[in-house]
Formats: sequence, C-alpha cells, structure tokens
Amino acid sequence: MVAPHDGGPLRIALLGCGVVGTEVVRLLVTQADDLAARVGAPLELIGILVLDVTVDFDPVVDRALLTTDGAGLVERADIVIELIGGIEPARTLLLRAIGSGASVVTANKALLAVDGPTLYQAADEAGVDLYFEASVGGAIPIVRPIRESLAGDRISRVLGILNGTTNYVLDRMATDGLDLDVAVKEAQQLGFAEADPTADVEGFDAAAKAAILASLAFHTRVSLDDVAREGISGITADDVAWAARTGHVIKLLAVAERLPEGVSARVHPTLVPLGHPLAGVRGAFNAVFVEAEAAGELMFYGRGAGGRPTSSAVVGDVVSAARHRVLGGKGPIESRYADLPVLPPSFGLSRFQLRLEVADEPGVLAQVARVLAEHDISIETVNQAILSVRGTQLADLVISTHRAPVGALAATVSALGALEVVDRVTSVLRVEGE
Amino acid sequence: MVAPHDGGPLRIALLGCGVVGTEVVRLLVTQADDLAARVGAPLELIGILVLDVTVDFDPVVDRALLTTDGAGLVERADIVIELIGGIEPARTLLLRAIGSGASVVTANKALLAVDGPTLYQAADEAGVDLYFEASVGGAIPIVRPIRESLAGDRISRVLGILNGTTNYVLDRMATDGLDLDVAVKEAQQLGFAEADPTADVEGFDAAAKAAILASLAFHTRVSLDDVAREGISGITADDVAWAARTGHVIKLLAVAERLPEGVSARVHPTLVPLGHPLAGVRGAFNAVFVEAEAAGELMFYGRGAGGRPTSSAVVGDVVSAARHRVLGGKGPIESRYADLPVLPPSFGLSRFQLRLEVADEPGVLAQVARVLAEHDISIETVNQAILSVRGTQLADLVISTHRAPVGALAATVSALGALEVVDRVTSVLRVEGE
Repeated sequence: MVAPHDGGPLRIALLGCGVVGTEVVRLLVTQADDLAARVGAPLELIGILVLDVTVDFDPVVDRALLTTDGAGLVERADIVIELIGGIEPARTLLLRAIGSGASVVTANKALLAVDGPTLYQAADEAGVDLYFEASVGGAIPIVRPIRESLAGDRISRVLGILNGTTNYVLDRMATDGLDLDVAVKEAQQLGFAEADPTADVEGFDAAAKAAILASLAFHTRVSLDDVAREGISGITADDVAWAARTGHVIKLLAVAERLPEGVSARVHPTLVPLGHPLAGVRGAFNAVFVEAEAAGELMFYGRGAGGRPTSSAVVGDVVSAARHRVLGGKGPIESRYADLPVLPPSFGLSRFQLRLEVADEPGVLAQVARVLAEHDISIETVNQAILSVRGTQLADLVISTHRAPVGALAATVSALGALEVVDRVTSVLRVEGE
Repeated sequence: MVAPHDGGPLRIALLGCGVVGTEVVRLLVTQADDLAARVGAPLELIGILVLDVTVDFDPVVDRALLTTDGAGLVERADIVIELIGGIEPARTLLLRAIGSGASVVTANKALLAVDGPTLYQAADEAGVDLYFEASVGGAIPIVRPIRESLAGDRISRVLGILNGTTNYVLDRMATDGLDLDVAVKEAQQLGFAEADPTADVEGFDAAAKAAILASLAFHTRVSLDDVAREGISGITADDVAWAARTGHVIKLLAVAERLPEGVSARVHPTLVPLGHPLAGVRGAFNAVFVEAEAAGELMFYGRGAGGRPTSSAVVGDVVSAARHRVLGGKGPIESRYADLPVLPPSFGLSRFQLRLEVADEPGVLAQVARVLAEHDISIETVNQAILSVRGTQLADLVISTHRAPVGALAATVSALGALEVVDRVTSVLRVEGE
C-alpha cells in the first residue's frame, strides 16, 4: 500500500519526451506555483526517460533529468506519467511503477484498449491511482465525465469524432472538394498526419479510443478486438459531394451503444445529418456526443491531439493523483459489474445510404426495390441523377433505407451487384444521428 | 469527522420534491442495483422533506418517506440532497446536515453564489463533501471538469449560455422573427419559463451561475454582487434581424475572464459570430465554452434544465460522495488561493456594435466618427440602410468598433445622442467570440 505523504514534494517521473512530454514539462515548470497551491505540495520532476540523452530537446527540458534507465526511474517516483505509447516497454514500466507504489497517468490508448484490465488490476491491488484522460479526445474532459459525472445515469450511446487527422481530411474534402490522397498529403504537411497515416486513416486509432469509451460507458470490458473497424480510405470526393446533396456530412464516427442484447462498438465512415451537433465539428477538432437516459444529449468538444492540449489533460490527471497522495482518497477503479455481452460486428440494425450506378431505363427501380425487400430492407427515400459515363447513359441511384439488419447487408449488396441493370454499387454508408 | 462506513446501506435524505426531486427519486429507485454496484453499497432513501405531505406526488415517491421535519431528517443521513432552492431554509438545513457529519449535494445556485464560502468552510471543517454539479448547466458536466479535469491548466475565459429560457426566447426571435414578449409567452406555455420570468429574462439566474463558474475557474471568490448583469428585456426583433444581417446571433452570455488586472464576470446580451460554436446552440440547450492556455478551446453542451437532466447531475454527485463514504477520500474543497482582484463592471475593453438612427444627409458619418474618436473608440466597419420613419428619410447606421474601453461607453452614447443628426441610439451590444 501507499505510504502516507510526508509533506515534502511529490516526485514525478516522466516516461517519454516527445511533443506531449515536452509540453507536460513546460506546464510543470511554468505553473509550478499554481500546481503546488492546488495540490497542497510541490510537484518535483525527478527524471525523464528518453531513448537517447544526446539529442536536442526544448530548452524547458532540464538535461540533467534525462535518463535511459526507466526501471530505476519509476521506482523512485510517487507519480509516473507514461507518454511512450505502444504496448512495450510501456506496460512493463507501468506495472513496475504500480508495483513500487506509484500512481500512474497515461495517454496510452493502445495499451488500455488491448490490456487495460491488467493495469486496472495491478493498480487496484496496489491501492494506487490509474488515470488516462489524455488517451481519448486529447484535451477534452471525457473520461472523467463518463466515469464520474454520469455515474448516476445510464448511458445509452456514445458517438465520437475521435481522430483529428481523418476529421481534418474529411472536412477538407467536404469544404474544397479535395480528393482523399490530396487531403491526406496536406494533413501530413501541416503535421496533423503521420508519414504513415494508416493508424488514422484505417480507423485503428479511433477503434482503440472506442474500446476505452465503451468499457467506461457500459461498465463492461470491451477490447480493441471487439471493435468493428472500417477506415476512410474508400471514401471518394464523389461520396462527399453526394453526402452534401442529401443533407449530410461524412464523419469517421466511433459508435458505442447499449442494445437490449448487449454492447456494440464500431468505427466507420458515417453520414451525419447537417443539423446534428457533430456535423459542425470542423478541422482537426474532436467531439464526443453522449446520449444518457436521464441527462439526454450531451456533447464535449475540443482539441483531440497536439502537445499543448494533450498536456493539459495529462497534468489535470497528475493533480488528481497528487491530491490523493496528499489528502488521502483514490480515484475510480475499473467498473465492469454490468458485464454485458459484446456483440459481433454483424449484429443490430442501422440506417444505410446505398449509391448505385444503374442503367437509365424504365423498371430499374422496381428491380432494385425487389432485391432490397427480399433482404428485409425497406426504402425511405430514393434520389436519382442522370450521368453520362463512358458514352452510356447511366443514372446514379441513391437509396436511403430505414433501419435494416446490418448482417444482411453484404448479401444485399452482392445481389444488387448481380442485377444486369446495376452497373456497380458505388458506395454503402451508414447513417447515424437522425 | 465522518465515521467509517459500516458496510450497510448509505442513508440518503432528500430536501424538496418538485420536478427535479421527483426525478432524483426515480433514478434512485429504478437504478438502485446499478448505483449499488457503482458505489459498493446500497443507497437507501430515508426521507423526503416537503412543505405539505397531503398533496399529490408522482407514484414513484413513497409517501411513507415524506416529512415536514427537515432538521430531524438531515441528522439521520449520510448524504443530504438539497433541492429546495433559495437562501433559507436551505442554508440552515445544509449547515445542520454538514454539522452532523453528512456530505451534501446541492443544485442551489443562488445560495452558492451568495454565500458559497460559508458552505465550503463548514464542509471543510467537518471533513465532508460539498458537490454542486447541478447548480450550473443542468445535466452538463461542467463543475467537475473545471474543478478537476482542468486543474493542470490555466483557464483564461469562460463564455456560457447558462439560461435555457432566454436562449429559447432569443432562438425563437431569430428563427421566426417573433417579438420578445410573444416568445416569452410561448416559453411559458411550453413550461420553459416561469409565470414571473424576471429571474431568467433579466439575467439573475445566469449571473448566479457566472459567479460560481468564475470562482472555480479563477481560484478566487466571486459572488453574485460582483457580476455585472444586463438582461434581454431591451432586445427587439429588429436587433435580432440586424444581428443576422451582420453575421451574428444574439445570445445572453455569461462571460468570466482573467485579465492582467484581475477577474471580470458579467452577463449581457451579446453578438456572437455565426461561425462560433456557441452560435449553434439552439432552443433551451445550454453550453459552456472554455478557453484554457494549454487545452485551447473546449465546449460542453447539453440540457441546462428540466427534471430528468438535472437529476442526472445530482445523482452523479451522490455517487461520488457515496463512494467516498465507502472507500474513503474526499472531493475537492474550495480553491481560492489565487485571490485575484474582482474588477468593476466598467473595467476592461470590449468590441461593440452600435446602431443609430440618423438623418440621411452628407456629413453625418463624419460627425459620428468624430464623437467616437474623441472617446477613444475606433471603428472597424460601418453598415448603413435607408429607412422611411414617420415620413422622414432616415438611415440606420450600424457601427462595429474595435476593442474599446467599456467605461467610456455610456458617455459616448450620450454624446452621440446629443448630436442633432442622430435621431436616437437604437441599440448598443457587445460582441464576443471573434
């Protein structure tokens, strides 16, 4: 168990000194007096784990604190901040920190989504805090509101724009008609996207965050493997333009919902109606829309990435953990009492928008409608535009469905594609928020 | 000090059983199992203070729990929920509850804004929790994020739409061109506005909430008397239409900001640019926009009133207080270490939009501009429309200023009114969010 605080400074160890780590150091240094007043004791940075002590760091980083001995560092700390990311060595260092009685603050979404229960259990046994506000939504307070503020309510659904890179890309496509690859390159040039943008573009980053939020919202363990995932790489400028024509905008949404049968968690490009609060989330901003039985609709909005915004969430957690060291008490532990079934990706109902290129001749809609009816999918609206493609007269047929069984969709799409009058199924997108 | 929890149920006392109280009872009853799992002990409602036990209540309310003996009730409770509102008898009952070792949860914005320090001090001395999430922004988690999530950051400004009634009224005026009194009547018919709408329309409700948020955000005591207040009763359909023509919407904003000289807190009708996230907050929704040095821009959005939404915030606080009873620990206490000067209403700079009815003749703008220059107010844009009023040819002159000294404004307006070419100064509105 944790020894009582002796009145002296609290010893803070920082693992990782990249963009976020540097800004964490800056907050700890520039706001030292404020932080001490809020905690009731000074916060003393005792060491910073880096891979190479000889490279350049921001002048705010005291080089005397740099070390490559992570294990030695965490054992001397009251609070360990982990900003290395990835599974190893982050996990081993965090477990070692916890084992030696330190509270831990991490922004590591991948580790939490893959192996959160191991960390929770270790922290619980050691009687220390495990905080991770920065792992989802950057600066946006969302982990604490879901774990604590909404603890008296029952959350039914969480819809999140949790990846700033893809939101920036989709916003640029919508605003200026850019192609996906052009928008991704622009995001890379502006520093919003990595050199290898796969984790963002294919939805892996958002899926890890979806697993974390679903676990918290539904008091049930949901891991990365449980999250159905589809990225935005298949989204074309044409899809985005068609979305606007039908009163929508395309967002990469993380959706976690509580259905009568269990919990569904997924990430996919989604048509969001223009009047929905999430539709107005522009650029690299993130937002989380929460539907709870008593509270109704809530939205949390802010910067989802970047050194300074993320450092705000990290140091907020450090203050909570530090106050517990000084004043006693402990933050929330894992809440998984509900233990709901986690549903497979093919489960449930969803509204869809299907876009087909069809022959411009009488009777086509009747054939398409018959295939949909055979698969239990009922049509809400049909929209048609005549195209000239490759010298042939074709029509772009846009069909919005009522809520339809997700599992039936793949078979429906192949049956539609097999129709002679259907040239191709151009896109299939879910619709949320209506 | 608080006795250790004995493993039995936690005894909850409820003071007040109106719209919110009834929904609190409903949550405690319908979600009893979930709440017990989250807290680690059952929550047992031991009594409900009402004025008259003989009137009708919702069937969810067990009449056997009703009592008119508040003092006797609070002394038997582990946690007291205060939903009476107003200063007395709420204050006396809360102090008695705290004095007998109960933690307290209140939605009482008026009491907190007028005499919060007395409650804080009593809770601190007794070692019990004082939670009040529901006092600001209804269901929106905003008190906890400001007190805890942003504790590692420095907040520079808070802009809030904190009164749903006036937001509904202004929204109806903007959307359908209604006059103020018509929109207020409609809000009354829909149950959004009280029979006497003064507290909402004149900004008293928002001012109390502004005092609470300013105190938390700036670690400084700010009371209701410190908040400059102007309501929406002077806003006309014409003002709202002109706002739209200049790319704005009028919102009743609570503004709390940290200036180099101290803290400014005020409530006034404000022109918000259409592109700002607060401009999109429709109907009776509330939202709080926070600017922090590291986090950047954040927004929290949701239902600011109503029984069910408010009950979510109340029971969330009950869970936090109850967990502390079971597991040890304590919530945040008053943070007023910064103790910044609280600035008078006339302090500071602001952008303004002035609307004048002037004679439609050459040289008018020159005269108006000279008066503004004499008062150190520089013009950003001028907009003019010709009107025919009472048989005379007049012009509507709309002037947007750069940031100008607030204290000089009254003198400027009288000097403008004294010009022979100025028929009248139609409106003077602040601009925020640009």
